[in-house]
Amino acid sequence: MRTGIATVCLSGTLKEKMQACAIAGFDGIEIFEQDLVTSPLTPEDVRKMAADLGLTLDLYQPFRDFDSVSEDLLAANLRRAEAKFKLMARLGMDTILVCSNVASASIDSDDLRVEQLGKLAALAVDHGVKVAYEALAWGKYVNDYEHAHKLVEAVDHPNLGTCLDSFHILSRNWDTTPIQAFNPEKIFFVQVADAPKLSMDVLSWSRHYRVFPGEGQFELAKFMGHVVRAGYTGPVSLEIFNDVFRQSDVERTAVDAMRSLIWLEEQSAKWLEAASDSGVGGGAGGTATGGTQAPGRRRYPMELATLPQVTEPAGYNFAEVRAADTKGLETVLGQLGFEFNGRHRTKAVQLWSMGHARVIVNETAHLEGDTSAEDASPAIAALGFDVDSPVIASARAQQLKAPAVPRKSQANEEVFQGFAAPDSTEVFLCQGTSDGTAAWTREFGEGLEKPAAGPSAVIDHVNLAQPWQHFDEAVLFYTSALALEPQPFAEVPSPTGLIRSQVMATGDRAVRLVLNLAPLNQQRKTYQEHIAFAVDDLVATARDCKARGLEFLQIPANYYEDLDARFGLAPDFLATLKDLNLLYDRDADGEFLHFYTATVGSVFFEMVERRGAYDGYGAPNAPVRHAVQYDHLQHR
Amino acid sequence: MRTGIATVCLSGTLKEKMQACAIAGFDGIEIFEQDLVTSPLTPEDVRKMAADLGLTLDLYQPFRDFDSVSEDLLAANLRRAEAKFKLMARLGMDTILVCSNVASASIDSDDLRVEQLGKLAALAVDHGVKVAYEALAWGKYVNDYEHAHKLVEAVDHPNLGTCLDSFHILSRNWDTTPIQAFNPEKIFFVQVADAPKLSMDVLSWSRHYRVFPGEGQFELAKFMGHVVRAGYTGPVSLEIFNDVFRQSDVERTAVDAMRSLIWLEEQSAKWLEAASDSGVGGGAGGTATGGTQAPGRRRYPMELATLPQVTEPAGYNFAEVRAADTKGLETVLGQLGFEFNGRHRTKAVQLWSMGHARVIVNETAHLEGDTSAEDASPAIAALGFDVDSPVIASARAQQLKAPAVPRKSQANEEVFQGFAAPDSTEVFLCQGTSDGTAAWTREFGEGLEKPAAGPSAVIDHVNLAQPWQHFDEAVLFYTSALALEPQPFAEVPSPTGLIRSQVMATGDRAVRLVLNLAPLNQQRKTYQEHIAFAVDDLVATARDCKARGLEFLQIPANYYEDLDARFGLAPDFLATLKDLNLLYDRDADGEFLHFYTATVGSVFFEMVERRGAYDGYGAPNAPVRHAVQYDHLQHR
Repeated sequence: MRTGIATVCLSGTLKEKMQACAIAGFDGIEIFEQDLVTSPLTPEDVRKMAADLGLTLDLYQPFRDFDSVSEDLLAANLRRAEAKFKLMARLGMDTILVCSNVASASIDSDDLRVEQLGKLAALAVDHGVKVAYEALAWGKYVNDYEHAHKLVEAVDHPNLGTCLDSFHILSRNWDTTPIQAFNPEKIFFVQVADAPKLSMDVLSWSRHYRVFPGEGQFELAKFMGHVVRAGYTGPVSLEIFNDVFRQSDVERTAVDAMRSLIWLEEQSAKWLEAASDSGVGGGAGGTATGGTQAPGRRRYPMELATLPQVTEPAGYNFAEVRAADTKGLETVLGQLGFEFNGRHRTKAVQLWSMGHARVIVNETAHLEGDTSAEDASPAIAALGFDVDSPVIASARAQQLKAPAVPRKSQANEEVFQGFAAPDSTEVFLCQGTSDGTAAWTREFGEGLEKPAAGPSAVIDHVNLAQPWQHFDEAVLFYTSALALEPQPFAEVPSPTGLIRSQVMATGDRAVRLVLNLAPLNQQRKTYQEHIAFAVDDLVATARDCKARGLEFLQIPANYYEDLDARFGLAPDFLATLKDLNLLYDRDADGEFLHFYTATVGSVFFEMVERRGAYDGYGAPNAPVRHAVQYDHLQHR
Repeated sequence: MRTGIATVCLSGTLKEKMQACAIAGFDGIEIFEQDLVTSPLTPEDVRKMAADLGLTLDLYQPFRDFDSVSEDLLAANLRRAEAKFKLMARLGMDTILVCSNVASASIDSDDLRVEQLGKLAALAVDHGVKVAYEALAWGKYVNDYEHAHKLVEAVDHPNLGTCLDSFHILSRNWDTTPIQAFNPEKIFFVQVADAPKLSMDVLSWSRHYRVFPGEGQFELAKFMGHVVRAGYTGPVSLEIFNDVFRQSDVERTAVDAMRSLIWLEEQSAKWLEAASDSGVGGGAGGTATGGTQAPGRRRYPMELATLPQVTEPAGYNFAEVRAADTKGLETVLGQLGFEFNGRHRTKAVQLWSMGHARVIVNETAHLEGDTSAEDASPAIAALGFDVDSPVIASARAQQLKAPAVPRKSQANEEVFQGFAAPDSTEVFLCQGTSDGTAAWTREFGEGLEKPAAGPSAVIDHVNLAQPWQHFDEAVLFYTSALALEPQPFAEVPSPTGLIRSQVMATGDRAVRLVLNLAPLNQQRKTYQEHIAFAVDDLVATARDCKARGLEFLQIPANYYEDLDARFGLAPDFLATLKDLNLLYDRDADGEFLHFYTATVGSVFFEMVERRGAYDGYGAPNAPVRHAVQYDHLQHR
């Protein structure tokens, strides 16, 4: 699959955008006109730079408001088009995007549109230009991709084809099945964009909220499956208008973009395979353009690369907290019931465990190369996940452009395959075991082959604060590289703003990762994050913790009154909750008991007990937690 | 008018919110339940604190999902209600908001609702509670305020009334006229909220995009006029769910909120007066509750305070730029054709003028008390506006809670009435003159009573960067305190993000002020701002500036090619534009020529010529300006 991206997706100047696209590994780009108009680079400069960077210039865009106009305006539009065709010759570009008219369209006649598009195609011949006509979702008369395609068929000119843009099609809920019967020679270009399902006017939705494939809710694999079945072999190019991406670092955004296409390519291949297995009609495209029918598998002209396959992780292997001064962390872990398993043979890290829950305390204050003061106080630094094959999972992550963070190891030590998540948390892929143990624990202290004594416990979930620039990127990252599934998001009120909370989880909920969008004025790692451990008997655990002197997050009395008003709890049980600062939630599936520790640096811990099939996180209690923590921060 | 605000509007803890509301001057507050539940304050603490702060506790809210339910659920709901009624007794509160059911409603029967609301009212009697029933815009069966009112009338119980919320009414486009015929004794509470007109689902719109009155597009004065005509005399209380306000400084937001109610009170009085003058039906409320009919003016039970009246400003009196080192500014002003009129007799400021355009160059680097380094480089510090009466205009601004910034003056010097705009720019109210001169200029140099020689010029517009926290606040500030009207906003692409651009202007366009919402990662005064001057002959002015060595913002050649493709300009004219780095725009009303200087600190200047009735700002050229400036910033 040839990958492309429109320059409008990215921040910076045309030069910066082109360089970032090349670094991220795109095959080609679409030149968004405004990026050229505002650039000091001449068209010849751009052409040379693209060649030097190994980028093809696939599409000049957009040319607006051409069709459905009066004779006068048509003449002016053809003059305007000719100027752009000449410019394209200087750029060495051959395809231009012409959008269906939204503004100056005055005549609703398909005959007239066929005549006018025909004139444009005739002009295009003289300049060696191919015109890709696209139905905008809010086009005045043409807003349906099948209508645009019908007009192209009617003109029947080699220099006129159509451009299919997933946003314009899926935002209107058009069925994409008819695409597979399109003549591939008439599909001049394919643009892909994802979007969250929002109920708002389609223009605002398109201009502000598009996201890269895998970051929204459109059925893009199916759309691409139909495009592939049609026999299309041209670029698959991103055109994403997104307010955040436009403000973010250009190189990071380009990598995020490239990751989304790599993932989409894999998902499209999977969709085709699944559809083929289930006998879903395969369209004529494949054979029409020479694809051959392999036994049980149809082949298509477009080659779709696949990635190393992984299953979802089996659980958390460990969580790592880093601090310049680890004393506070050690105290809290001890009070929670964690056992100190010694220091590592060769590294300045400690291992603490409780059942299968393992916490590494890293005494190295800073990430390599990062000397910012804020990173010296305790913060979550890394997460380890149990996977079937760390090597395969790591290869997949690297193909998805995850930056590798190999951990230095001595002989006889387990080598962790690791990479950096968008928020800079390090993610390590560890060898899972059927009994939940981890071989690397032998490298600590006296050696530890069995789970620690004491109450059984596992890491229930980890909650990471995400800076606003990288929230969508993080969703795609964990989806594609770690096979976690985004769940419907929640919004939690807090004294510093409404917090968007996005759970990423495995189907069996062995791994639950919560991404919290930090308020705009918060920076990475100054906002609180936490690790939650699940135990069998929270009340007993809390009593033990209290006996060991743990500082619980103090829950206001008003909370328990409200709890009683909502649930009508047994007085003894309510008194126990109140006495131990426990929080409670209940839904149709079960019950949830939990408590929080005071915060150390920017980290705190949570203990939870899930009763029945309760699948949530005590969301109704989150505002209490935020308010009390905020109050403590104000007064410490 | 009794003013109120719901605690949910503000950031921080309940204690911080209450203190901020008292400081801002509210009469009372609504306690949003979650703010109490998450607070360490006991209900008795809250009651005492409110009394100490001089705040009444007007409404406990919300109580959700009561009506239209099965018998089982009704019993649970009544138990839940009783717990809240008891809590209210401890708070010393008597009114609770009950919203129409959105979640657990299962039976669509008005008879059943009347029965269930009647039971709630009967329970309320025992606790001395008044129930204010409100139709949510997205209520399952009850989503129309007239429906809610009809149910209240049918129950006909002294402890049951209705709550009117402007958002729930105006978001659905319900006509508010029927309100004026409501029995005022059945209106228990009135909530006001404004909102931009967005086409999106009403729940998301309500939860994220409400703004304070005057910051959106709802016809709130008319709504309030109908409420006043009904004879309502209770609190008029703000209930604003806004993502930005929830993240902003609590005290500032409370002042912004209070300003919006002061402004709404005035607008409501004006609407009533205008409606009365034009003979628009006056409703029965006024007389029904004892209002007396004054000659030509109807009186209502609710007293509406008015503000000192001002007309829109007649023009800019001056703009002031401040810098530690003013050399760069002096050079540019001289090259632009400004004449140096000397230094002030007693202050470290210079006066530069060109026709009626006056620029004060302030050699004091910092605002008083502000020693941040970023404020030392050139920045726009103050704007002076010509008004009829500076004293009256200043009194109005102060009543609207604008923080005064009196300027120190010696004897025989003009005293400027000034105040601080939300972005900290100082706004001064100056005595306008019919010939455009300013008496204070005599305090400079040798004295200057006449406009300077040289080309005639005026300040055409000023462009200020607004931090994201204070954008809506600024719109209301300039609307209410300075009588500028917000125009439809534009969105301008730039290399660092999409910039929201909001023009505030007088009807005659003598004053045009452009508020640009800076990208999220930009701080106040590090983002570029500018002052634009209008001249009669831009080409001649540009030639003179060029001859004086002015550094123009360099416009890329690509821009002129695109301009030609769009407008088909005469070759000579196009060559002139290109030669002089002029930008051009044209619309149905006229033409616009302009150029920009290079940036000094965070300030640059623009020269414009308006031809015909052109009323814009060359918006199609703004992306070019942003891109070139960004490129310079990267390389300087």
